[in-house]
Amino acid sequence: MTVKAVVLGASGFAGAELLRILDRHPDIRVTAAAASSNVGKPVSGAYPSLGSVSKLTFVTVAEALASDVDLVFASLPHNASMGLFAGEGGPKVVDLGGDHRLADAARYEEWFGQPHAHPTTLSSWVYGLTEFHRDRVAAAHRVANPGCYPTASLLALHPLLSAGLIEAEGIHIDAKSGVSGAGRAGGEGFDYCSANENVSAYAATGHKHIAEIEQELALVAGRETRVSFVPHLVPMNRGILASCSAQAVSGVSAADLTEALAGAYRSEAFIRVLDDDLPRTKRLSGTNLAEVAVRFDARTGRVLAFGAIDNLGKGAAGQAVQNANLMFGLPEAAGLADRPLLP
Amino acid sequence: MTVKAVVLGASGFAGAELLRILDRHPDIRVTAAAASSNVGKPVSGAYPSLGSVSKLTFVTVAEALASDVDLVFASLPHNASMGLFAGEGGPKVVDLGGDHRLADAARYEEWFGQPHAHPTTLSSWVYGLTEFHRDRVAAAHRVANPGCYPTASLLALHPLLSAGLIEAEGIHIDAKSGVSGAGRAGGEGFDYCSANENVSAYAATGHKHIAEIEQELALVAGRETRVSFVPHLVPMNRGILASCSAQAVSGVSAADLTEALAGAYRSEAFIRVLDDDLPRTKRLSGTNLAEVAVRFDARTGRVLAFGAIDNLGKGAAGQAVQNANLMFGLPEAAGLADRPLLP
Amino acid sequence: MTVKAVVLGASGFAGAELLRILDRHPDIRVTAAAASSNVGKPVSGAYPSLGSVSKLTFVTVAEALASDVDLVFASLPHNASMGLFAGEGGPKVVDLGGDHRLADAARYEEWFGQPHAHPTTLSSWVYGLTEFHRDRVAAAHRVANPGCYPTASLLALHPLLSAGLIEAEGIHIDAKSGVSGAGRAGGEGFDYCSANENVSAYAATGHKHIAEIEQELALVAGRETRVSFVPHLVPMNRGILASCSAQAVSGVSAADLTEALAGAYRSEAFIRVLDDDLPRTKRLSGTNLAEVAVRFDARTGRVLAFGAIDNLGKGAAGQAVQNANLMFGLPEAAGLADRPLLP
Amino acid sequence: MTVKAVVLGASGFAGAELLRILDRHPDIRVTAAAASSNVGKPVSGAYPSLGSVSKLTFVTVAEALASDVDLVFASLPHNASMGLFAGEGGPKVVDLGGDHRLADAARYEEWFGQPHAHPTTLSSWVYGLTEFHRDRVAAAHRVANPGCYPTASLLALHPLLSAGLIEAEGIHIDAKSGVSGAGRAGGEGFDYCSANENVSAYAATGHKHIAEIEQELALVAGRETRVSFVPHLVPMNRGILASCSAQAVSGVSAADLTEALAGAYRSEAFIRVLDDDLPRTKRLSGTNLAEVAVRFDARTGRVLAFGAIDNLGKGAAGQAVQNANLMFGLPEAAGLADRPLLP
Repeated sequence: MTVKAVVLGASGFAGAELLRILDRHPDIRVTAAAASSNVGKPVSGAYPSLGSVSKLTFVTVAEALASDVDLVFASLPHNASMGLFAGEGGPKVVDLGGDHRLADAARYEEWFGQPHAHPTTLSSWVYGLTEFHRDRVAAAHRVANPGCYPTASLLALHPLLSAGLIEAEGIHIDAKSGVSGAGRAGGEGFDYCSANENVSAYAATGHKHIAEIEQELALVAGRETRVSFVPHLVPMNRGILASCSAQAVSGVSAADLTEALAGAYRSEAFIRVLDDDLPRTKRLSGTNLAEVAVRFDARTGRVLAFGAIDNLGKGAAGQAVQNANLMFGLPEAAGLADRPLLP
Repeated sequence: MTVKAVVLGASGFAGAELLRILDRHPDIRVTAAAASSNVGKPVSGAYPSLGSVSKLTFVTVAEALASDVDLVFASLPHNASMGLFAGEGGPKVVDLGGDHRLADAARYEEWFGQPHAHPTTLSSWVYGLTEFHRDRVAAAHRVANPGCYPTASLLALHPLLSAGLIEAEGIHIDAKSGVSGAGRAGGEGFDYCSANENVSAYAATGHKHIAEIEQELALVAGRETRVSFVPHLVPMNRGILASCSAQAVSGVSAADLTEALAGAYRSEAFIRVLDDDLPRTKRLSGTNLAEVAVRFDARTGRVLAFGAIDNLGKGAAGQAVQNANLMFGLPEAAGLADRPLLP
Repeated sequence: MTVKAVVLGASGFAGAELLRILDRHPDIRVTAAAASSNVGKPVSGAYPSLGSVSKLTFVTVAEALASDVDLVFASLPHNASMGLFAGEGGPKVVDLGGDHRLADAARYEEWFGQPHAHPTTLSSWVYGLTEFHRDRVAAAHRVANPGCYPTASLLALHPLLSAGLIEAEGIHIDAKSGVSGAGRAGGEGFDYCSANENVSAYAATGHKHIAEIEQELALVAGRETRVSFVPHLVPMNRGILASCSAQAVSGVSAADLTEALAGAYRSEAFIRVLDDDLPRTKRLSGTNLAEVAVRFDARTGRVLAFGAIDNLGKGAAGQAVQNANLMFGLPEAAGLADRPLLP
Repeated sequence: MTVKAVVLGASGFAGAELLRILDRHPDIRVTAAAASSNVGKPVSGAYPSLGSVSKLTFVTVAEALASDVDLVFASLPHNASMGLFAGEGGPKVVDLGGDHRLADAARYEEWFGQPHAHPTTLSSWVYGLTEFHRDRVAAAHRVANPGCYPTASLLALHPLLSAGLIEAEGIHIDAKSGVSGAGRAGGEGFDYCSANENVSAYAATGHKHIAEIEQELALVAGRETRVSFVPHLVPMNRGILASCSAQAVSGVSAADLTEALAGAYRSEAFIRVLDDDLPRTKRLSGTNLAEVAVRFDARTGRVLAFGAIDNLGKGAAGQAVQNANLMFGLPEAAGLADRPLLP
């Protein structure tokens, strides 16, 4: 079986990464690529190195959706995918945008500052952090692919909270992202001379990804939980490192923590639990891999947990393909064999 | 009056920055530069652009100290300066290393894993975070120049704790440093190909700079306090950003926090308090300037405080010169007029 | 005497560098800064670290020129300064743009694709590559400040051609520039993610700076000469390295070449002739310094000459101030004492 | 058929790239990896992300060669492989080092400053710039894999010289390499702080790669030819851009030049000839792809030809695998399907 897939938003960074991955996928074939600014132009102009994908011509979103297709990857700006999937049925969908990640319409309104246009559809989406929702993803018709920051953060925190080793209250996340996290459009502050040789925080309170993180932690904790989250911009192209700090539950040891991570990911193909080492984003670049590690600061009782990914890999296109593989009964790692460059 | 100064450790990064600053200082003149690996070689070979300083020849530490000198800047490896200033009297000293920053010999032993060789001398040193100990520095014969991480962290936290706006317990600091923080020797992981396009944490627990931070916060809080501190390596040459998280005291508002910072630094020439913006290391590179800002996360009750510096400027050589100026009754900003490059 | 100066184009990179330099200049005081996009806003908003300059408010070009002023630094887009100085008299001018660098209106039309609007004024401008036209600059009322590429290239080639050691025909220049060379506006290809980890050539034939280079070489050679010139974009903020290749005149030795450079620059404060080493842009960043070196490839008879500068320093604002100093009888190095950061 | 291969020098950058490529190769299986500094340690420690390769343990070169093996990839320091293949027979070999690239022992002695230890063996090696020696490579028992600079330079120059469009005399090559070109050992000048924000030339005359370039150009030109060649270090991890300048043969047009490149590479899977664009190293990173382009500077009669590759891809491990594929009758592109990351 070959799955026929379309990519919406094919000229953005995540769209480009989808095309790069899918071009070598053994079981998924891209039959259309939609990119509003490039309609009618050959894909080979934008992506000269790709194989069969490069033989396509960019089409509109409507054209792509009107084609005979089994699977839609939507990598569109905020608000843009909401209206596309308001009805039932149709092809399976993996939405890389933020429109369908929050199960609760009230939470959506709270964080996005406007009511969701199709609140009743939200319950039909599965939040696709694969390692924690594998069975639901496999059965899903529509998957909301997690944000990059939530993926890195939850990979570090989820097993520790799940094992009852850290307190649900007082979690703080300090995240560092490469510049591609700002998207291809970039803008002020993302020109080379501004971003180079610089590190800075932004959106120190209220980043929209917090809502996803809290939603998922609440599912584990069994009650509402609030996190503080500060994202930073770091001068490199790709990569996210989430450095998380949480209060240890009384009596916890370093061994407990490491074992919780090791146990959670023992059978996972994409998650590497480090022991003597700490995560490095460079070792993950261009892949769907993640690295996690945990340390116990006995002096303060704080647990320091780290999760690193490629923001465009496990943080976007890689995980989207991983989810799609599950949705179509394909091997979960199909098409995801890329390994990081050294150096 | 011209102050005659020697620089010990003149081939390291901080030593190089001292020479660069002092070469243009109106009132301090470098009369000797000691660099063990370059003894007998002309300073001009290592630093071809400097003025009068470049006419010197590198000497040994002993030779430098034996000369007729008013002031010693010591930028030496751990343990190396401890024995040089065991006696009383002699020229004034600013020690950029870590041997004399902790007032309590027991604390030193706890953090450095060995007894201090001259514990009775510790009380004669003043901890030179200038803005908080200006009067004592001015009166001091010997100043222990703060570490780079403590400088960035304390500039953000000190006024907030001092004003009673944050809790002394539960402070967490996530710090990001450029690669020069590892020193000129560098070593594995600091070659270009390893450090480039990479971000990682290191020493997630137990970094020695914690001791300084806790010492200073305890002075403000009036009791022992413990912080968790995680340093990170970021691909850029210079700069430190300390992103601090603390629990707000009940009833605190965002305005209270901003006002505390603004008030603390209103008369400070080197500290810029940002309001609408967050600190950027690039704006401080090559200078003795710092930027600080604070945000209140009302949802979680956490205070997010940021301090940024150039690790070799306000984090080392710049502050050392600022302290020396005070110690000799010179204008505090003498020799520190460099402004950042754009870009 | 204090020279009252205005800076036109004060929000571009060269304008910013002018303000940074002039803010510390002992004899030149900036009395107005014109920046079309920021009129009415405080200079301190754009440049928070500067001293007296930061107390100004951005004005229009017309307002700046209407003020009582001794000196105008014009750092404006192509075509913009041409009309400002069509009349005679008025304050002295250093034009950092390209409108007045070519003495011959026909040459201007050939390279810029349009007639010069005020061709008769061209003869009143002196081409300000200081080291080669010092006396004329000192006597000039108006100086056309050289382009960045011509400065780096001519510093390497001029003395060798002048000494009759290289042929005037067949000179090839391969130049590498940091990203700030593209100006602050940047644009496509200059966002961080595009420029980072990348090197590429552009404008492989016909770059406008060729005209300046050929004009100056012709003055030395005593006849028309043509060069091929290929600029490249390199992932760094500042710096230009011009690697020049020329045919050696028969009988030339390596010693002849080195001696020609050494002799030409023996009394120059800003030009460092390297012998055992080759130029490195990093050693010049933020300064008005240049490094030059030459090698003789005996196997091919080619002379390889290298010139490196900071494109915003000796390649723009630094040289502009150097020229202004001469025009007002000030010490040539006044205000130009900045030395490079290490690292 | 599965080809059993060993990699000698498996801890260097080229060795690492070989392991990364071969780990996914459908027809070549790595059965041993030799790395002198890591003997006895698991490959997974050095390369945690690889698949079957990571299950190996590093062995000595002697152990690797003593195993039952069809193919040897040797990526060893200068002089090290010379003695390994002095005898006849044995497994097929692709040597990524420089010991066997020069067919003429006298030329070897001239460039390497010492006699070749096994001069009579040199004739048994085929110089593996695949596109120009495909048939000989396919028939070869031993292939000397080209250097990175020669590969980039020859891909640009070879078709133009072959078509009689450029003069063989007076060719000048200005090459720019990322820092990984210096090898994993690095050393002084290759630490992050030295290489970052810097561009410089090195070995301006006499680089050993010149010998290879001249050898190949002479084969095309039918007579000895000499080139001048200046390599540069650029702050990025990977990539080489060779910017070549040559005298056009009289009467040549831009169209002739472009057509010569287009014709030469029309059927080549890995060489992309650009028309409206110039090569960018970033578009090739992590791949065996190359980009070439040519421009005619009618004013000077110079031809400007550009070749770009990944120095570790087409410039080392990628081409080595391409050659091995031919030597074993495998599809030439087997295992070389990686496409560049964007960004």
